[in-house]
This record gives sequence, structure tokens and C-alpha cells, in this order.
Amino acid sequence: METLRESLSEKSSSVEAQGNVVRALKASRAAKPEIDAAIELLNKLKLEKSAVEKQLQASIGNGLHNREAFRQNVVNTLERRLFYIPSFKIYGGVAGLFDYGPPGCAVKSNVLSFWRQHFILEENMLEVDCPCVTPEIVLKASGHVDKFTDLMVKDEKTGTCYRADHLLKDYCNEKLEKDLTISGEKAAELKDVLAVMEDFSTEQLGAKIKEYGITAPDTKNPLSDPYPFNLMFQTSIGPSGSSPGYMRPETAQGIFVNFKDLYYYNGRKLPFAAAQIGQAFRNEISPRQGLLRVREFTLAEIEHFVDPENKSHLKFSEVAKLEFLMFPREEQMSGQSAKKFCLGEAVAKGTVNNETLGYFIGRVYLFLVRLGIDKERLRFRQHLANEMAHYAADCWDAEIESSYGWIECVGIADRSAFDLCAHSEKSGVPLVAEEKLAEPKEVEKLVITPVKKELGLAFKGNQKNVVESLEAMNEDEAMQMKATLESKGEVEFYVCTLEKNVSIKKNMVSISQKKKKEHQRVFTPSVIEPSFGIGRIIYCFKTGDEQLNVFRFPPLVAPIKCTVFPLVQNQQFEEAAKVISKELASVGISHKIDITGTSIGKRYARTDELGVPLAITVDSDTSVTIRERDSKDQVRVSLEEAASVVSSVAEGKMTWQDVWASFPHHSSAAVDE
Amino acid sequence: METLRESLSEKSSSVEAQGNVVRALKASRAAKPEIDAAIELLNKLKLEKSAVEKQLQASIGNGLHNREAFRQNVVNTLERRLFYIPSFKIYGGVAGLFDYGPPGCAVKSNVLSFWRQHFILEENMLEVDCPCVTPEIVLKASGHVDKFTDLMVKDEKTGTCYRADHLLKDYCNEKLEKDLTISGEKAAELKDVLAVMEDFSTEQLGAKIKEYGITAPDTKNPLSDPYPFNLMFQTSIGPSGSSPGYMRPETAQGIFVNFKDLYYYNGRKLPFAAAQIGQAFRNEISPRQGLLRVREFTLAEIEHFVDPENKSHLKFSEVAKLEFLMFPREEQMSGQSAKKFCLGEAVAKGTVNNETLGYFIGRVYLFLVRLGIDKERLRFRQHLANEMAHYAADCWDAEIESSYGWIECVGIADRSAFDLCAHSEKSGVPLVAEEKLAEPKEVEKLVITPVKKELGLAFKGNQKNVVESLEAMNEDEAMQMKATLESKGEVEFYVCTLEKNVSIKKNMVSISQKKKKEHQRVFTPSVIEPSFGIGRIIYCFKTGDEQLNVFRFPPLVAPIKCTVFPLVQNQQFEEAAKVISKELASVGISHKIDITGTSIGKRYARTDELGVPLAITVDSDTSVTIRERDSKDQVRVSLEEAASVVSSVAEGKMTWQDVWASFPHHSSAAVDE
Repeated sequence: METLRESLSEKSSSVEAQGNVVRALKASRAAKPEIDAAIELLNKLKLEKSAVEKQLQASIGNGLHNREAFRQNVVNTLERRLFYIPSFKIYGGVAGLFDYGPPGCAVKSNVLSFWRQHFILEENMLEVDCPCVTPEIVLKASGHVDKFTDLMVKDEKTGTCYRADHLLKDYCNEKLEKDLTISGEKAAELKDVLAVMEDFSTEQLGAKIKEYGITAPDTKNPLSDPYPFNLMFQTSIGPSGSSPGYMRPETAQGIFVNFKDLYYYNGRKLPFAAAQIGQAFRNEISPRQGLLRVREFTLAEIEHFVDPENKSHLKFSEVAKLEFLMFPREEQMSGQSAKKFCLGEAVAKGTVNNETLGYFIGRVYLFLVRLGIDKERLRFRQHLANEMAHYAADCWDAEIESSYGWIECVGIADRSAFDLCAHSEKSGVPLVAEEKLAEPKEVEKLVITPVKKELGLAFKGNQKNVVESLEAMNEDEAMQMKATLESKGEVEFYVCTLEKNVSIKKNMVSISQKKKKEHQRVFTPSVIEPSFGIGRIIYCFKTGDEQLNVFRFPPLVAPIKCTVFPLVQNQQFEEAAKVISKELASVGISHKIDITGTSIGKRYARTDELGVPLAITVDSDTSVTIRERDSKDQVRVSLEEAASVVSSVAEGKMTWQDVWASFPHHSSAAVDE
Repeated sequence: METLRESLSEKSSSVEAQGNVVRALKASRAAKPEIDAAIELLNKLKLEKSAVEKQLQASIGNGLHNREAFRQNVVNTLERRLFYIPSFKIYGGVAGLFDYGPPGCAVKSNVLSFWRQHFILEENMLEVDCPCVTPEIVLKASGHVDKFTDLMVKDEKTGTCYRADHLLKDYCNEKLEKDLTISGEKAAELKDVLAVMEDFSTEQLGAKIKEYGITAPDTKNPLSDPYPFNLMFQTSIGPSGSSPGYMRPETAQGIFVNFKDLYYYNGRKLPFAAAQIGQAFRNEISPRQGLLRVREFTLAEIEHFVDPENKSHLKFSEVAKLEFLMFPREEQMSGQSAKKFCLGEAVAKGTVNNETLGYFIGRVYLFLVRLGIDKERLRFRQHLANEMAHYAADCWDAEIESSYGWIECVGIADRSAFDLCAHSEKSGVPLVAEEKLAEPKEVEKLVITPVKKELGLAFKGNQKNVVESLEAMNEDEAMQMKATLESKGEVEFYVCTLEKNVSIKKNMVSISQKKKKEHQRVFTPSVIEPSFGIGRIIYCFKTGDEQLNVFRFPPLVAPIKCTVFPLVQNQQFEEAAKVISKELASVGISHKIDITGTSIGKRYARTDELGVPLAITVDSDTSVTIRERDSKDQVRVSLEEAASVVSSVAEGKMTWQDVWASFPHHSSAAVDE
């Protein structure tokens, strides 16, 4: 096994190196044959790497079947207890749409409250709340209209749609798992396909589907060629039908388009962060993986705007000493696994690109741990070079291990100036920040002065259009025009707004470069973006005891903080229970009152399943017992104190250990069977 | 003026009476000429009523112009302080879409937290959270696909769309206000049109627009005939294009379709309430009235399910003694104004239909008053008979007076069993509740027994369809078939699923009514629905001082609870301010720290404009002053206590009066200029 690991590490390095070669060739616009050859070599290396990877995986074994059973068990409990309900169930449901039932809603609301507290309040962020309906131009600028697609194939007879890569993946996996007749060579080929298919072009994917004779899974009908399907829900704004719009696929764009107002609101100071919680929509082709890949979900996103020349963070020292599982690019490429790093060192060594990115990684870690995510099931994985968008400086995902494997729950990316530049360009509104320079700086500035009198004589009513076009030239265009005018005295010039060329003569415009003193630096800020999939985080709470169906929500996120029940059916006890219930409600503590006559043991089991951390049992008219779910320990407190003890624990002001140390213990092994 | 009022009261009663006549005729399916005549009389009476109404209004005068100026002033301040931002502003914005900026978000989040506390927690409601994307069948059942429309006209040349009733209204108002040449007769006619246009049919509205020669306001081009435009944003679910969907126009339907699961979750006990907070969407034809009529908004809705035969409420006594402004149908019809009623008496007298409806009216009143809505600007207006849906038992709107007049912010309706019946019917899933009867009851039950052997011989492969159709007959259909079979021996019978008639003979089915003992009553619950327009409530906070641009948010909803500033720029004071700021953040109190050197008076003014209720000024290294916005009073407290005093007031645990009574007063008239 160690040999395999070493071999994988070697192969991975070669892939990374060759990947860099390809990118360098593309960047330098090398000749096509040269690039193609380099890509061919890259694919070969990838095949080799993936072959080793698969061998290694097989030799480890992975217990997939246990996972599947556990997952099904969890989903059943979640649905039975109304954590989730398939949406519109009485009408047969809609794939990829789920409701949160009462306990799910309570958990979600607790998570969002804590998110607001931990990020918006404690970091003084500017919260905004923008509509889901978004006009096309915004998503054109962001690139979503053109690029937010998956490849799809259609059953040529019924029209049923499938994700092309899913079909190919399923075909390969099934062959490998169930068809014992295939040759070793064929098996190797299928494994190779699985390894490299992520990088397939539309044509390559289509060719493979044809080659393997893959048909529609439900009907065995032939399939169409793959083609891109845009994942946004489209709609139309207003009644005319002429303003296309989409349901936003993320909340971030609403922040970017408001940058200017927010920057002014913040007193024109950087850095600052804006945040938004809201619904996002993705019209998945055929949603699978139940609650993880859905068509509508809640995102919580932060856009932290920072000077690209200074990405230090004032509060970095507060997180620098944290140690937790990280999985840098290098460790992934060399086949190692995630290991514990000290965050401060990871930033100092350059493993994490900059302090601000590191600060947010630390804050996300603290957030997830405070929510009760197990530190051993949480890791921060760095994107490989080929996973990132070309403009991104660095990107880390907080992944939580669940029955589906490691799930990306939070992405933390340094997106550089990409988004603000894209919207500046499309809208014509500069989304920039200024910095007063300590000393004025001398710069060369382009000066274009159209001679209006001459232009008026030549172009009459069109003068204004020509003037505007001349003034809008960038430095390159203007210097080229200046050169042509000096050599030829005349130049053909395209005026957009007239949609034609006009002839510009030397006397119509003066172009020069003047030295100027600048007192401020104007620049487009970089954006560091932590983006939280709230539903995925909630799904990952379902840890607990794999056998017992018990949800181990920590008090902070538990949907119901406390159950209140009289030990036996008895008017006095019931009255006392109602008084406590009212006190709990008045301090905002969600709870359940259970006055059925069921045995106390059964009632404890019932609340354990819901993940209720505390239970108050009224067994006298002056005092009650409080029981903690995980330890099953009980203390005795007075009737008057009950609500305040529970609320202190629920809000994190007191731990159960504090309670255990302050109140007399109570033992009742007999009833808690 | 009193004569006018009396006259209006008379006219209103006649309209109400004649309205009842029309409804009765329609219900009894009277002959068309008879109905038409009654409607004609009704319209005549409405004209008379509206003429008197207008006279009265004119004689009162209404200060519309002051209102307009005030409104503009408020909107400017709201936008300047980023309470609201026109969405996608850098791209020119989209009518009817607004962002909440940082203070707007904070207020919204506070209002929603308090809503959850006041309704969901204190009333033990079941919260759900359903997707916005909704398949067509759900909204077909609810009636939205067919009936959720406004009448629209198009500019025949440019295609620009207008709401037909808005154009007619604007035409009439402008003629009346600006055209001094029109005759008294014409003026009366226009006033009549304004009064009755709400009840115009598509044809009547079109005819009036033609008659008055109304053209497109922007171009003066001719207009199309009016036609209904559905106000839902349409989209398509999944990639095939064959599953139409809509963005939900309200959140209620998500609750109704989950009734069965929620009823089981509640232990099959009535009454119970479910609640949902979320986005709703209405593709308004041409949104006007700025922030009040928008295309996307946050609703908070409650559906309280109750036995139609017992609408009493266990906790009614807790609200029965409340007294506030109510505006029952009778008072409206007789031209009186809203007056103070005792809620208990209003229910006892039958003014409010039932205790549960009354209970929610009381709870809504308490909610709005706790939020800081002025009692004198809040009234509960009952819907007139012709305003309500035909199935509604009673309906009251909580209206708040603003610069747009009285605005409906919360609707509280008894919708009877309409919604659950509609979804039961469409989905085939019975959405019903059961009640165990104390004593079994003898009932007659229809028994339909298809004779499968005979049917099989006669219909072969179609047997199953015929059997299902026979079994699906309701009581009327079955008893009619029984009679025909007994008299003629044979009957023609339409089988839906075959789309044709078949001939049923006497030996093919036996139909009878058998006596049966029933041990439980099965019924469709009634729904009481309080529905809150959160954005409208927030808009109505903008009360305060009409001159001063000061927002008088009570501490509970204030976006920023507190400002912290050092009296002068000084490292010691700044450090202390930062310590307090950190303490405030850790207990979740939103605040602003201001360490600019601006004069303290200017800093107070700045926070006053944002509606910040409290300000902490650090003027020593051991103690600070706390100032209250409205009274401008100041107390002195120790550095250590500052955060906890502010948090007690912000969370409503202490009033400013309590603080004033407990701490030494501080006077600093000199700086607070």
C-alpha cells in the first residue's frame, strides 16, 4: 500500500507540472499543435494517476454499503419527524424541492441567528437583502447567462432529460461493479474515463456516450448529443415579455451591484464586508443526492472588500493560534491526507494566500465548531489549480464528513477584482475605491480634446455621437489614432452609436499625454467571499449515534431546547408545568409540554429522538428535575429557577457542567429505563 | 356636513341591502333578466352613494399635497440612509424591486425575530419553510392560475402595458382636478365612474376607455381592449420545458398542502396553527406607490386550523379586555368613522364573527403596538360583504395611517374550509380531521358494489376503468342511476378515463344506502388566516417627527440599538469605547462605534436620524453617560455596567424610566446643542 501511495504522489506531481505547462502555453498564445500535444500528454498523465488512485482506493476498501444504509435510516427519521418534507407531497412532489418542517425550521432559524451574531454583528458587516428576481443584464455581466450550464442529453423518443456526465459515470461504475466478464484492459479504460471525464469537452463526452452505446436508462431509447443547459430558472419581468429575468443562482451579485452605495455608507473606507442571507435557485437537470443537491436553497454569503495591495487583517492574531484539519493542494497532489495545521503558520508559509483569507477560514472554523460540528469530521480543503476560476487567487472549502463522504458546506475564495470589474464594465458605473496618497505621484495622463467647431461642420447633427466616441477611446486606441493622423492626416473611425465609420481629420481632435500630479490612487478592490450552504450545514448535524436515531444537537441549535412534563397526570403538576412553559416562552426558549400519561422513560426517548438537550420533570409542587440528554444526568432545582437555568444553557451562558456543579444531583435510574 | 353624513349612511344601507338581493338571486340561479335588473338598481344606488361620499370628502378637504411632500421627504431619507435601495440601481433599476440596505435589514430582522417570539413561540405554532418555486397544479387548485389577474391594456404601437383601471382612474381624477371647463353633469359622471369602477367587468372597463378616448399616457397612441394578465412570475421546472411552475404569490399554499403531516405531527388534535415566513412574488403590471406595491416581498402567514363547529379560543380571555380602534362594516356603511371598541364585546355582539378570529385580532393589535406603532394611527377595518371572497366568513384588516392614507398591513380572515377542500379535491388526498364521538351516531351510508363478473363480460379490458368510475360517483349521481336502472333497466354512463359513454345494465351494479354506526366525525377544518406584509409594517415605522427626519424606532426594532463614542479623541477613551463595543457584540446588541473627532452634538444628530435609541459617551476611564434619543435625558453608569444596561433596554427587559430611576442623572446641555 505504501508503494501505491508513493506512486500516486509521483503521478500527481507530474499532472500538476504538466497542467502548469498547458496553462503557460495557452497564456502565451502558443501555436495550436503545440498546445494540443501538451494536452495529450496531460491526459495521459491523468490516466496514469487515476489508475494508481483507483488501485489504492480498492486496496483500502470503503464501506460504501454501510454508508448507504445509514443514510437511508437518517433520511427516514428526518422525514418522519418532519425535519424535512418532500415539497408538494400530496401532488406527488417535485424532485429537488424540500420543505423544512417545524423542527427543521427551528434549527434553521437558530443557525441563521447565530450566523448573524457571529459574522454580521461581531464583525460589523453591512447586511443587505436583495430580490431573488434578477434582470438578465446583471447575470450577463456575472457570466451566469453564458456559462452557468451543465451538459444534458435527451431521450430521443420521450424527451426525458439526463445529465450527460451522470449517465457516463453510472455506466462505467455499473460495468466495473457488476459485469464480471469485462477484460482487465476494458476495466482499466473505464476507470480512466471516470478519472478524466470532468475535463471532457462537449464533443468528447458525446463521443464516449456513442462509443459505449449508452441509452436512456428508463426506456433504452437512443440519446441526443449532449448540449449545454442553463441552470437558472428563467422568467419574465413585467407584462410585456420583453424583459427576461432569472431567479438568482447566488446572492452575491446583489452585493456587488451595491458596492458603490455600501462603500459610501462605510465612509469610503476599506476594508469592509457586506453580507446577505437569502434564497438561491438552480434548475438542476435531474437532482439526485436527496437533500444535498436541491433546486432552491438558503445561502448566507459575505463579500469582504479589501485593497489588493494590502490583504492583512487587523484581527488575524485572534485566530492565528487555531489548529485544525487542513488539506492543502500539496498534500492532495502527493496522496497524503488532511492533517492538523496551525492557521498562523499556514498563512506565514504562504499555504493560505493571505491574512484576510486566513482570518475568514479561522472564523468559519469557529462558527462550525460552535454549532456543534465535530472537529474530526471537519476539514478545510484547498482547491487544486484546475478547480479554480482563472481569476481566483486562492480558494478553500470547509468540508464536513457525512454519509455522502466529505461535503462542501462553505466555500472561502479570494475572487480578486473579477466581479466588481465585470459590473463596472457592463454598467459603466465605476465600482472603485480611492486611497489618498501620502505624497502626490506624477503620472502620464491621456488627454483627448475633440475640436467641436470642426466636428460640427463635418458631422452636423451627429456631432455629439462622434465627440462621445472620441472621448471614450482608451489609451491604445487614442495613441494609434494620434500616430495615424500624424502620418496620414486622416483616419477611419467607427462610431458605435451611429453604427458606421466616419472620417476623422487631423484638425478635428487633439490627442496628447500630459504629466499630472495624482493625489489619490484609484483601484478596484479585491473580494474575499465566504459562502455558506445553510441547508448542507444543517444536514451535516445528523451525526449522533448511528444506531440510536438520536440527534445530538448542541443547545445552541437544538430545534426544541427543552421538554416540560409532569411526572404523573395530576392537576397540581400540570399547573406547575404550564407556569414553567409560559416563563420559557416569554424568554424566547422553544420547548414542548407533554402532559400525556405515557411513562417517563418513553417520553425521554421521544424527546431524545428529536435532539432536545434538556428535560424538566415536575415531580413536586416546589421543585423539579432537569435532565441532560447526552449524560442522562439529572439535577434538582426550585420551580422558580427552572426556566432561567434552561435559558442560560440554551443561550450558551452556562454549560451543563456549570449546572451540574451548582445544583443537587438527582438519581432516578428506575424510571429512566 | 351632518346632513351629508346622514345621507351617506342611508345610501350605504341601501347599497348593502341591494347587494344582498343580487347575491341571493345569483345563489338561487334566478333568471338572467331578473338578475340584470337587480344589478342595474345596485349600480344606480352605488352611484348615488358615491356622489354623496365625494361631496362629503370635498367638504372635509384632505391635505393631499402636504402628504405628498412629506412622503417624498421620507423616501429621500430612507434612500440616503440605505434603508432601501432601488434594486440593480447601477443598471437603471427595475420597477417594483427594492433592496433593504443595512439599517433596513436590521429592522426587518428585528421585526421577524419578534414575530417568531410573539406568534410561533408564545402560541406554540408549527413553523414550515417551503420553496418559492411552485408547480402549476398547486396554484391551479388554489385558483391563482385562473383568477390571480389584473386587467391590462397595451399601447397598440409600442406594446407598452398599463393597468386598465389605473388609466381610467387617472383620466377621471385629472379631468376633475385640472379641467375647469367640464360641466357639472360631466363632473358628476366622472365621480360616479371612480366610485363604481372597481366592480366593472372587462367589457365595461374597455367601453369606458373607448368612450373617453383615453390613449397611452406616454405616446398618445391608441390602446388595445383590456384583457386579464396573470400576476404570477412564470417559470419552468426541470429541463424538459413540460413542467410549468410559478413563483408563489403567497406562502399559505405551502401550509395547506402539508396539512395532513402537520395534523399528525400535532397528535391529530385541533385546533393548531402553522406559520411561515418567506418571499412572495407578484409581477405587477406597472408598479406605483413606491415601497408599498412591489414585485417581491416578505410575507409572514399563519394558518390556524379549527373545528368549524367550535371556533371558541381557550386564551380569548387574555385579549377580551383590550380596547382599540375598530371600523366594523356597519360604521363604514353608515358613514361613521372608526371608534374604540372593547374586543370582548365586539365578539359577544357578533360584530367579530367568532372568538378565534377575535383572539387573533387582539394578538395582532398587541404585536403592532409592541413594535411601536402608534395606537391612534392603527385601526381594524372589517371587509364589506362585497370585498370578501364568497367563501370567507369574516375578514378584518389591520390598517396603519401613513402618508399614503390608511394602509392594509395585516389581513385576518376566516376562510372557512375553502383551501383544504380545494386541495383535497385536486390531489385526491383527504385533508380532514377526525373527532371521536362520545356516542356512536347512526348514519346512512351509500354503498356502491360493481358486479365485476358482468362488467368484465361486457367491457373486457376496459372493465377496470368502468369499475373505478362507478365507485367514484357521489350520492346524487348514484341515487339517480339507481332510479333509472329500476325504471328502465339500463343507463348511459360517462367514463372519464375512457372519454366515452358506456351502457350500464341493472345486473352490473348494486346501489344501496345502508345504516351504519359512526364512531367518529370526519370534517374539513376551517382556517383562520392572519397574513402580515412585513415590508408594509416596516414602511409604516417612518413616523417620527415630520420636520426633523428622525426615526423614532422603539428599542425593540431599532436597527442600531446604541452608538458608542469617546467624548474627545483620546487613546484612553477610545480603548474604553472598544471594550464596550466588544461586550455589546457578544450579547448580540447591534451598535455603532464613532471615533471621529466631530462635535458630540453633530454625532448625536447623526444617530438620531438613524433612529438609534441610546448613545453611550465615554468621558472618563471609569464611567460613561447613556443618553436616550427622545427625552435627550442622560444618566451616568460605570464602565462595567454600560453594556448590560443598554442590552436590558434593547431587549425590553427594562424601560428607560427604570434606568432613569436607578442611575444618577447627568446634564450636559452645553454639548448637546
